[in-house]
Order: sequence, then C-alpha cells, then structure tokens
Amino acid sequence: MKLANFIYNEKKHYGIVHHNAIIDLIPLIGEKYSSLQNVLDKNALHELNDFSNHKATIHPREITFLPVIDTPEKILCIGMNYQDKRLEFNEKNNAPTIFVRFPDSQTGHNSLIQKPRISSEFDYEGELAVIIGKECYHVAEKDALEYIAGYSCYMDGSVRDWQHTWYTAGKNWPATGSFGPFLVTRDEIPDPQNLAIKTILNGNIVQNDNTKNMVHKIPEIISYISTFTPLKAGDVIITGSPGGVGVKRQPQLFLQDGDLVEVEIESIGRLSNRVGV
Amino acid sequence: MKLANFIYNEKKHYGIVHHNAIIDLIPLIGEKYSSLQNVLDKNALHELNDFSNHKATIHPREITFLPVIDTPEKILCIGMNYQDKRLEFNEKNNAPTIFVRFPDSQTGHNSLIQKPRISSEFDYEGELAVIIGKECYHVAEKDALEYIAGYSCYMDGSVRDWQHTWYTAGKNWPATGSFGPFLVTRDEIPDPQNLAIKTILNGNIVQNDNTKNMVHKIPEIISYISTFTPLKAGDVIITGSPGGVGVKRQPQLFLQDGDLVEVEIESIGRLSNRVGV
Repeated sequence: MKLANFIYNEKKHYGIVHHNAIIDLIPLIGEKYSSLQNVLDKNALHELNDFSNHKATIHPREITFLPVIDTPEKILCIGMNYQDKRLEFNEKNNAPTIFVRFPDSQTGHNSLIQKPRISSEFDYEGELAVIIGKECYHVAEKDALEYIAGYSCYMDGSVRDWQHTWYTAGKNWPATGSFGPFLVTRDEIPDPQNLAIKTILNGNIVQNDNTKNMVHKIPEIISYISTFTPLKAGDVIITGSPGGVGVKRQPQLFLQDGDLVEVEIESIGRLSNRVGV
Repeated sequence: MKLANFIYNEKKHYGIVHHNAIIDLIPLIGEKYSSLQNVLDKNALHELNDFSNHKATIHPREITFLPVIDTPEKILCIGMNYQDKRLEFNEKNNAPTIFVRFPDSQTGHNSLIQKPRISSEFDYEGELAVIIGKECYHVAEKDALEYIAGYSCYMDGSVRDWQHTWYTAGKNWPATGSFGPFLVTRDEIPDPQNLAIKTILNGNIVQNDNTKNMVHKIPEIISYISTFTPLKAGDVIITGSPGGVGVKRQPQLFLQDGDLVEVEIESIGRLSNRVGV
C-alpha cells in the first residue's frame, strides 16, 4: 500500500495511491482516524487495506503533497552512512553519527525546496526514510523491522556554508528537507537493504548507490537509537545519503534557483522538487 | 516574578513563587490560560503580575515540579561556550556548536535524574537556560533580549560513553536534563551576562564560573539560531556549561546513584536533583 498525506480543498487529507489516482480516506474512515499520523498512533495501518478497492477519485494534480508525516515528534538523521560518502569526507568514526531535524524544516513532494538566500552552498542528499509504526524502546536488532510502518524518500538538503561545527545549523532551514511522495508500507519492501537509490539533478544522476551499502543497517540503527531515546509511531529516521554530494565534486555542484532535484528509490517512488529562493 | 510549572493534586498547575510558597494561578486565571506554555503563547506574562499579591496557598512540599517548560517544540543546546570548557576539550572551532535535546529527556526540580544503567560515565553540566517569549525569526543581536520570556537553571546531563560521535546520543536519555526550579522573568535579570553559575555535587562546588565568560553571548546565540530556524514562545536555549566537568578531571568524577547534583545561578535559583538508576 502506498499512502499519501496531502491538502485537498484546503483541508488535510490522506489516501491510498493507485496508478496515479488517490482513494481519499477522509470520507471513508476520517471519523475514526483523522490523519495518517492518527492511523499510525492507533496501529491501524492494516485496516486501510479494506478500502484499497474503493474508487480513486482524486488526481494528484488536485492536491498539494505534505511531508509524509508533517509533524513527527522526532526526526533522527544518520550521517556518514554509505561507504563512498565516508571516503569523500574521510570519516573514521565507527559509531552512527546522529543529528536532528525539526519538523518545520520539512516540505512535501512537488513543493518548492527553499535555498536560503544567504547560502551559496546548498547541497542535495538523497536518502531512504524509515517511518516508525509503533512505540518502542530498547529494541533488539532481530526485532527492529517489526516496528517500521513503512518507507519513503527524503531529500535531506544541506546548507554546507552553515555547517559551521555540527550539522544542526546546516539542516534546519525551513523547507530544506523534502519527504515523500508516499509512505510505502513495510509489507511491500521485503528487503530494505537491497534498493537502488539515486539522486537526479536536472535529469542527471548525481548520486547512485544501493541501500545494501549502508554502513549501519536499519535494524542496527533502530536498536542503537532506541537504546537512548524512546520512539513513537510517526517518528522518522533518515538513513544517510550515498557519495556524490555537490560539496565534494570537482568542480563543486550546488543547488540553484529553478533546479529540479529528485530522489528515486527502487520500489518506493520518486520524490521531485524544484528549488526556489 | 518567579513562575513554577508543577503537578498538584494529580493535575498540571502553574503559579507564582513567593518566599517558599506558591500562588496557584489555575483557580485565578486557569480558564483563560490553561498552562504556563499557554501564557507564553498568548504573550500574556505581564497579566500575571495582577495576581502577585494574592495569597500563596501551596507549599513546595505539596507539589511535584515539572520542567519549567515540559514540552517545548525546540530545545537547542550550545556546546563549548565557556572559555575554560573549551580549553579542557581543546575546542578550536569558533562558530556555536549546536545540538538538540528532545522534550522527553527532561525532568523537573527535586525529581530523580536517571543515570542510564549501562553508562559508567554520566556527567554533570550546569547551564543557564533561556526561555523564548514570542515568535521570532531573523532577529538582530540588538533586539534579541526582547524575545526572552525569562531564565532558569538547567542540568544538561551528559552520557559521555554514548557521545560516540556527536552529542545527540549522549544527551537524549530520559530524565537526564533537569530544568528549573522556576522561570524567572526577564525584567528581574537586568544583565544575564553577569551571573555567578555553580554546579554543586554532594555539597562540593565542581563548576564555578560567571555567565560573562560565555564565548557566544545570549544575543549572538539568539541571532545565530534564528537565522536558520524560527523560534516560538516556550522554545528553550541552554547556553553551555563552564569548565570542571567530570570527564576532564583527574581522577574523573561521574554521577552515581544517590548523588545530589545542584545548579545554582545568581538571582535565578538553585536546581536540585538526586541521581537514581
């Protein structure tokens, strides 16, 4: 099942996505579950299957995509998690590097990503996002995948000239993190560690890897994070981006006004955003 | 005005603190403003002055202190911000180091601070906390203090053996950040950069400095942060701790079950917590 979170007729809706049309779930089950976050909170994803043969009445052109989860309590970001990226940045540290995004730094599929006016080093980073499906704490690696609701794409934009010391200041500008288009439920992705992942800038592939090359795999990440902080339904973990980022190219390649940046992950989708200023 | 956020008769209350007794504001103005966060959201701190001569009916022994703001949207933490601390850690980077705490890592005055069982390096860090009073974005240094609601003490406990790479994993364990006892309104602190700050462990002073020795002063910090992320009423900035932390002592000095750790800041108060496991 592919689920979208969106604005339709000026209200927040969510729905099941089928072949470029959307089954609006608000008229069908909105009284019981008012939002996709609410479905996750109630551990009720499976109930949505009952509506998957209903008529898809909304065309994607009629909606404004929201971030798949628009106000997660926690967005935890893993840095330096693909071998090629580690080589580019000469990263020696073996433990996961974790930083935090605030929810108001997010935007959705097809919306403008905002390049900060004062930055001349706004960089792309395509990543696999993991959406947590139920409360968990002190999770063993062997059980970790059970706590996942689904997956999505993330463009974890980096304001390199503001990563002065740590990443916080480079990763929290408004509308620099795009999240979507859909939440693809876990049952559709039997092996999240074997997915082609690409970032495409104005039609050219600029990052090209496979999630099997993550240094810290998803079960390890969930186990590590849940050792120190409890996770809840709707919390988001973005799992790091491959090599090929703009700051390490010769010559450097940064995002400019009007650029089209896309993150495509096998079996999950293609997230598209224009860059605005 | 000194304001406390607390549990009384199993419900959340807030009030004005006078000479070891509390004027409960819930019966007086609770219909209009249901919480201290709500007072800040409505920019209504000045209205509370009208109640400052009412009878203080609650004794601190009858309440459980909550963090001064229990669920801020953003808690931004400044690292390496006192000269002595920078020397201890051989910090060369000049820009503010910023990391994030999640609200569920907080606890209140007189509650147990939780040493993680698997840590043998749980360290104290006494800090001045700044509570934002109204929405702001792109604030100039000269205007920054106007956006402050008030100040408090913070014990920003560090799980050193989990600061594997960045601070996120060392700073987000449940009940490792104590925040209180009170919000002291800005009008009571004419110069926040001239306050003695001490951390006291089992009666011995272990950190002893003055906020004038902050490398990045409060207006600079607010201006810097609000360049990249909007701030709201109730958001919290903790401004770094002085030298003298346990990890850099010879021999090292870490928090143990039963220890009493206190953070005392001139004109602001003394935050006390026992350590539990």
